[in-house]
Amino acid sequence: MQLGMIGLGRMGGNIVRRLMKHGHTTVVYDKDPKAVAAIGADGAVGASALEEFVSKLDKPRTAWVMLPAGKITEMTIEALSKLMQEGDVIIDGGNTFWQDDVRRGKALKQRGIHYLDVGTSGGVWGIDRGYCMMIGGDKAVVDRLNPIFATLAPGIGDIPRTGGREGRDPRIEQGYIHAGPVGAGHFVKMVHNGIEYGLMQAYAEGFDILKNANIDALPEDHRFDLNIADIAEVWRRGSVIPSWLLDLTASALAKNDTLDNYSGFVEDSGEGRWTVNAAIDEAVPAEVLTAALYTRFRSRKEHTFAEKILSAMRDGFGGHKEPK
Amino acid sequence: MQLGMIGLGRMGGNIVRRLMKHGHTTVVYDKDPKAVAAIGADGAVGASALEEFVSKLDKPRTAWVMLPAGKITEMTIEALSKLMQEGDVIIDGGNTFWQDDVRRGKALKQRGIHYLDVGTSGGVWGIDRGYCMMIGGDKAVVDRLNPIFATLAPGIGDIPRTGGREGRDPRIEQGYIHAGPVGAGHFVKMVHNGIEYGLMQAYAEGFDILKNANIDALPEDHRFDLNIADIAEVWRRGSVIPSWLLDLTASALAKNDTLDNYSGFVEDSGEGRWTVNAAIDEAVPAEVLTAALYTRFRSRKEHTFAEKILSAMRDGFGGHKEPK
Amino acid sequence: MQLGMIGLGRMGGNIVRRLMKHGHTTVVYDKDPKAVAAIGADGAVGASALEEFVSKLDKPRTAWVMLPAGKITEMTIEALSKLMQEGDVIIDGGNTFWQDDVRRGKALKQRGIHYLDVGTSGGVWGIDRGYCMMIGGDKAVVDRLNPIFATLAPGIGDIPRTGGREGRDPRIEQGYIHAGPVGAGHFVKMVHNGIEYGLMQAYAEGFDILKNANIDALPEDHRFDLNIADIAEVWRRGSVIPSWLLDLTASALAKNDTLDNYSGFVEDSGEGRWTVNAAIDEAVPAEVLTAALYTRFRSRKEHTFAEKILSAMRDGFGGHKEPK
Amino acid sequence: MQLGMIGLGRMGGNIVRRLMKHGHTTVVYDKDPKAVAAIGADGAVGASALEEFVSKLDKPRTAWVMLPAGKITEMTIEALSKLMQEGDVIIDGGNTFWQDDVRRGKALKQRGIHYLDVGTSGGVWGIDRGYCMMIGGDKAVVDRLNPIFATLAPGIGDIPRTGGREGRDPRIEQGYIHAGPVGAGHFVKMVHNGIEYGLMQAYAEGFDILKNANIDALPEDHRFDLNIADIAEVWRRGSVIPSWLLDLTASALAKNDTLDNYSGFVEDSGEGRWTVNAAIDEAVPAEVLTAALYTRFRSRKEHTFAEKILSAMRDGFGGHKEPK
Repeated sequence: MQLGMIGLGRMGGNIVRRLMKHGHTTVVYDKDPKAVAAIGADGAVGASALEEFVSKLDKPRTAWVMLPAGKITEMTIEALSKLMQEGDVIIDGGNTFWQDDVRRGKALKQRGIHYLDVGTSGGVWGIDRGYCMMIGGDKAVVDRLNPIFATLAPGIGDIPRTGGREGRDPRIEQGYIHAGPVGAGHFVKMVHNGIEYGLMQAYAEGFDILKNANIDALPEDHRFDLNIADIAEVWRRGSVIPSWLLDLTASALAKNDTLDNYSGFVEDSGEGRWTVNAAIDEAVPAEVLTAALYTRFRSRKEHTFAEKILSAMRDGFGGHKEPK
Repeated sequence: MQLGMIGLGRMGGNIVRRLMKHGHTTVVYDKDPKAVAAIGADGAVGASALEEFVSKLDKPRTAWVMLPAGKITEMTIEALSKLMQEGDVIIDGGNTFWQDDVRRGKALKQRGIHYLDVGTSGGVWGIDRGYCMMIGGDKAVVDRLNPIFATLAPGIGDIPRTGGREGRDPRIEQGYIHAGPVGAGHFVKMVHNGIEYGLMQAYAEGFDILKNANIDALPEDHRFDLNIADIAEVWRRGSVIPSWLLDLTASALAKNDTLDNYSGFVEDSGEGRWTVNAAIDEAVPAEVLTAALYTRFRSRKEHTFAEKILSAMRDGFGGHKEPK
Repeated sequence: MQLGMIGLGRMGGNIVRRLMKHGHTTVVYDKDPKAVAAIGADGAVGASALEEFVSKLDKPRTAWVMLPAGKITEMTIEALSKLMQEGDVIIDGGNTFWQDDVRRGKALKQRGIHYLDVGTSGGVWGIDRGYCMMIGGDKAVVDRLNPIFATLAPGIGDIPRTGGREGRDPRIEQGYIHAGPVGAGHFVKMVHNGIEYGLMQAYAEGFDILKNANIDALPEDHRFDLNIADIAEVWRRGSVIPSWLLDLTASALAKNDTLDNYSGFVEDSGEGRWTVNAAIDEAVPAEVLTAALYTRFRSRKEHTFAEKILSAMRDGFGGHKEPK
Repeated sequence: MQLGMIGLGRMGGNIVRRLMKHGHTTVVYDKDPKAVAAIGADGAVGASALEEFVSKLDKPRTAWVMLPAGKITEMTIEALSKLMQEGDVIIDGGNTFWQDDVRRGKALKQRGIHYLDVGTSGGVWGIDRGYCMMIGGDKAVVDRLNPIFATLAPGIGDIPRTGGREGRDPRIEQGYIHAGPVGAGHFVKMVHNGIEYGLMQAYAEGFDILKNANIDALPEDHRFDLNIADIAEVWRRGSVIPSWLLDLTASALAKNDTLDNYSGFVEDSGEGRWTVNAAIDEAVPAEVLTAALYTRFRSRKEHTFAEKILSAMRDGFGGHKEPK
């Protein structure tokens, strides 16, 4: 099957490569001609402009946009849609806010253009491991593009099957899901990332407690000098908390158990924030997911203004001075 | 090798069975004679009293106590130690508070009795899957009992090895660790459980957000009717958040995706609490682990007094009345 | 000065009364003719329809809308604005989302109609105590309507003056502020309410800890049977935590220290949610304000789906059953 | 009445001065002879050693210990008690952990020495404003020392009386309470401080949101440049959130609204921690009080190890690099 790809970064480039490896053909465009040339050398049909990109696609066209969420994705889809025709499909595979999908999907539908939102998980490992995909859009379109999704998905591999799923949608076990109408794909991907933040923070706090188990402030017979690289590894084996995130942690600690190659400045992308917004809209208490997000906010500041307010109050009622 | 086991519940019984299956011999005691008889039929040497239990053990004796943490473990170890001699070993494999281990270890040492604390993870699955063990105590004793631990541990199995661990303690990859002196085993196990609470809560909140994505309070075009059993399953495959806990969740949802076979009354054991206490003693912020604990506290109440205070204040300043 | 008031509920009615008591004249409208009649008996000019209301106002007209935030306020302002003319002023004194103010202010400005958003605090006590007002809009309009605000504000009263404020805007000490352009008033009011949630929850948790200090689960010599009504009262006097909210709490507890006249079902209005949204947009960690909001969400559910997920996991890995 | 005071720091010295101003006599001791001399000049009988201090007290003696909680208080009371006789009273007015009081009270009782724990609030303002006191101990002793407490307490002053308290213990309105047996005083004071942390953090977060309402990351028409000193002041007047802590904040902001005279390094004393421990022992969810404590922990670190773990994971799954 043929797929057009706009955006040849880490994700877009690897998706194209995985597709070609399994016999699909691709047309590619990126504002960086070198990225186009590089993947052209691997067999993709390159385009040096959006118009050329569209003209090289067979009708009905399918164009996957894999760009940073926000303004650039919005503008690209806007421009692309003007070149597309009734029956064509635009896929947003980035980390777009699902309410933008809903809005866009409606607008494009009026012009007969199909829109799919595909939450795509797998990171740098996806090219080999496959991508877990959460898809929103019309059933007919999702079904028509099934060969693409089936190829990108990890497949059942050696992950054990869950009992009681006989007779259910077989795509799920292959690692992709048609989650619902436009927006549902990115909504589910958003919650996936929200959970990811929470899981990461749970491990992070646990290791922090292990790391600080030997500080002077503790009574001498209540201190432990623990090997946290070994602990991360042992928990991978027979405990209740193994996970891929723990595997990655064990791997990082095996290389450098002080992690002093990192400063602890932690970015957040939109999904963590939107997950909390969704929780609030639904009146669902989401303490852990929110705390995980706030930790990242805090990690990027030297001090908050809130902390200065605390110091000012303490000075005010108790004459407490901060250490210099 | 010979091991004595006191306490033949789900954990103790299965540990004995796993040991015997691999050629070890066992002496067992439980206050319930039926439990002793049952496992005796499988090959264990039974005892009907603590004295008999001790007398049937070869010297130097090794007795593993596998009882609910707290008073019963304390009293049993107290009684047992009076029957033991210099060079004997008492293992507490339960979920004991690590500071109790430190105290006990010191007291027993004065009488020449060795004490090991073994945090044992694996739950009902351990008999087949093996137990991840976190061990505290003297090196010589841990080394001497290595055949027991090696048998109980899961072994390397088909879990991929972590790069960069060449030349390290080989026991870690087998699934057990000598974490440090007495207390260190239960300390590490405690943090394991603390993390477990946090991970569980992260998933739980995420699924709650998915579950409530279709409520009437949301704008009509922002609602999704999601198949959360399928979502749990698809996330096991190629996403960033696979884990054993997710496997279990997918399995439960495959059977009944409303989970109306559960009420949502969630117990907590000591480890979650002690983990927060440890974080506080170390001045480590542990928002997520604490929030996970508090959620469990709240799950067991119809309403908190705190909530009544809020209602009283709202009535006071705004005349806001609660719905009947 | 003349003010038109739409909406004669607890807040709108009392504002009108306070204005008339101090010599202002008012024109009033409410969809409930009885409310109009009641306040007409106190001296207000009543109107039985929006058109009549507008026609009875002197030009340039000033109409204060005091309705529940959301659709009804939106529709009323929409209808009202069609009857208004260049130079007229619409005030939204309700609890409107500040981004709605920004949108509305822009649209009305194009038609020459002024818009003010006035966050109005004071609750049922405001008629006597006065209202703390946080005002957004153009300076000229705010200045022109100063007599209204000055009358509604509490005035300096017997609240001690803060040192170092000499030469500053004198309106602040009277209890009202021109916070900035349209939207700023409700933004500041929103944060006020966000803080309110946090303060309330802090007290609530503290009293919950006092209330539970005598439970059986505690060691006998670590239990206290505390008189929480007396404690609330004593803290009003010389401690670090006196506040109006504590006064209200002490008052409620003096009447009934079990608070069993309340169930603990706690509503939230939009401001608490929007405050968290604002924190997230600004990447400001707001743990306490968010936790306070989530507590209210939780107070309104028998159990969350999250809690059922936890129970399902615990059953899965440990065979733990919930109590019946 | 006569009172002995050990520890002439900010709190102890001012307590002595307030007592003498109202006609009581005092005997004082401090390890710093200058502190003894200074207050001796104001009329106190000074002592240069503990033995001398005890000998100068009339029987039955009453000695108030006002020292930093922990080892120094423990040692001083130990030494003091050896010099005291049956019927004498030791008061611990510091911020002692209430479980230490329970232990100490029991031990002293066996020797016939009375022990009171007095949680004393009021900070540097207490000398004029009076001290809110939360007292634990035997009724007879508390009653006998009433003249001391009545003098130290703020008295009813101009704080309005709470309705419905007619016929209740009149001491409460004077600002002191006999909370219960030994330990109850410090327990109540502990919760007071726990609440204090929560209140402070609620304000702090709110002001942080106001402060960051103008950052570049926000859409241009959603930014506000707010005068937070004025907002703090206006909220003191007629809003729902006035409090003494807000008074102090308004005062600090009036002097310097950037608060750049503070770094934001925030200490915590034991009470905040013990409050969380108490909540956990009682299974009371205390999200806000705990979050407030954790914020302080975090304020004292450049980065946490937890944050480095997050960065390591993000690098692992997504190749995300930290900014340099």
